Amino acid sequence: MTSEADLLRHIAARSADLHGAGPIEVGPGDDAAVLRFGGEQLLLTVDQLVEGRHYVPESTSVDLMARKAIGRSVSDIAAMGGTPLAALATGALRDGFAHGDELFDHMARWGRRWGCPLIGGDIATVDGPTVLTVTVIGRAHPERGPVLRSGACAGDGVYVTGAVGGSFASGRHLTFEPRLAEAQWLCATLGQRLHAMMDISDGLGRDGARIAAASGARLEIQPQRIPLHAGVQTWAQGAGEGEDYELLFTAQGEVPPRTPGGAPITRIGSVVEGTGCVLLPPNEQPIDASEMGWNHGG
Amino acid sequence: MTSEADLLRHIAARSADLHGAGPIEVGPGDDAAVLRFGGEQLLLTVDQLVEGRHYVPESTSVDLMARKAIGRSVSDIAAMGGTPLAALATGALRDGFAHGDELFDHMARWGRRWGCPLIGGDIATVDGPTVLTVTVIGRAHPERGPVLRSGACAGDGVYVTGAVGGSFASGRHLTFEPRLAEAQWLCATLGQRLHAMMDISDGLGRDGARIAAASGARLEIQPQRIPLHAGVQTWAQGAGEGEDYELLFTAQGEVPPRTPGGAPITRIGSVVEGTGCVLLPPNEQPIDASEMGWNHGG
Repeated sequence: MTSEADLLRHIAARSADLHGAGPIEVGPGDDAAVLRFGGEQLLLTVDQLVEGRHYVPESTSVDLMARKAIGRSVSDIAAMGGTPLAALATGALRDGFAHGDELFDHMARWGRRWGCPLIGGDIATVDGPTVLTVTVIGRAHPERGPVLRSGACAGDGVYVTGAVGGSFASGRHLTFEPRLAEAQWLCATLGQRLHAMMDISDGLGRDGARIAAASGARLEIQPQRIPLHAGVQTWAQGAGEGEDYELLFTAQGEVPPRTPGGAPITRIGSVVEGTGCVLLPPNEQPIDASEMGWNHGG
Repeated sequence: MTSEADLLRHIAARSADLHGAGPIEVGPGDDAAVLRFGGEQLLLTVDQLVEGRHYVPESTSVDLMARKAIGRSVSDIAAMGGTPLAALATGALRDGFAHGDELFDHMARWGRRWGCPLIGGDIATVDGPTVLTVTVIGRAHPERGPVLRSGACAGDGVYVTGAVGGSFASGRHLTFEPRLAEAQWLCATLGQRLHAMMDISDGLGRDGARIAAASGARLEIQPQRIPLHAGVQTWAQGAGEGEDYELLFTAQGEVPPRTPGGAPITRIGSVVEGTGCVLLPPNEQPIDASEMGWNHGG
């Protein structure tokens, strides 16, 4: 069977002609699609949360399931520099799961917390793992517009917010705060100097390779500069694990060292002419970053 | 465990305060939510298609799975009188399902056919039944605006397009054509005389009761007038089965007997003061319609 990553590429390739068709400004393949409607640029994204894959049912509270389900899609809106407006949620709940009401209450609460109240949804029961989907609609930054993956230019610096690695071991994959405020502040502060951005879901290496591919440029990363969470031993672990939900972006010119809220911003590399994303450890061979990280298809 | 219908009511009740909050004009509980942007009204809906519940995997082609998944959500946009613009699709595919590429190709094709190209999605594999979700974003009718379930008034006639019953037995639940053109024509032709509308997914009786409850009015239906598909023996079957995807609407004044495309429009009853939806068979006791039909939760 085709891998999920292949399938997602297939979908994006098949839809390449959609860009610019009618209200569709950006089709599949970025963190969110972009539609122009009533003079505004709207962002649309959907993501799935699968029991046993994105959370361990035995040890995850209903509140944290809800939080992660909403947070993943909100993070996609953050990755575009946008503001969430509303959400739709579906649950295919494992037979016998007794907390449907509570789960949707928590999803509604997390939606409101991040600016996207639940405005619709659907529920079914299934003889299999629980699967939640969350669609979020948002608004692009009014001045900067949506920040795509495809804007990286030779000469840009490559930056990451916060720190990476150890998301599963630490439980942070359940409790992360989507970088909404930080992304909007980057849009306001850097404006058109903010060239490309995404959230790190599959690992810094793999996601860096996606920016490189979308932009037709090469990202060169100094792995020793990658900011690691406490307890993360090696940069390979920091760059290779998934579910960090930090912002990875490229920008031209000066970038402040931290956000007003105190999140560090670290320059970890540069954009140059060429293709691919490579890690350049001191005194070692370059490492192709595209095969690092966790392939969970989303 | 709470029934799915209870759970959906719970969600709608909890979100009652959303109506009119920010861009949200209509929250959960109708066929689609309504958001306002710069003078335009946007419709948003999501639905699930569950293997073994909404289709039989052994006898359903990948093309028909895709068609039904997209068609159900498109029908929700039709039920509001709207026009689809774009769709997002997710697949939680049963381990070993070998047709992921093909399935998404077909969903993309049906989306284009009905005016909503796929602009995003997500794929995972699961140890359980395949679950597809389709989110559709649409535009409300520019003159009539969105047609809600809540507008039925005493004095209206109650109407249904086409014919009902036997959707599963005939296979029509897989091949229905969402009533987009018919609904838009009703909006243009009846304008503000078109008071309430929905698509029949859970059976004419149960869905009629939803219009009554949302409108604070009573629907009285003459069951002998219900237009039945060939092979459907009784009006109880016609009103009680689900997945018809016909339009059920109430309107004031004259309504043409068919659409320009030839779909019959049948008056089956009246809206009066009161509550509930009842069927009034000649010379028999009234029948409460709210418990008829197929409770599939959405």
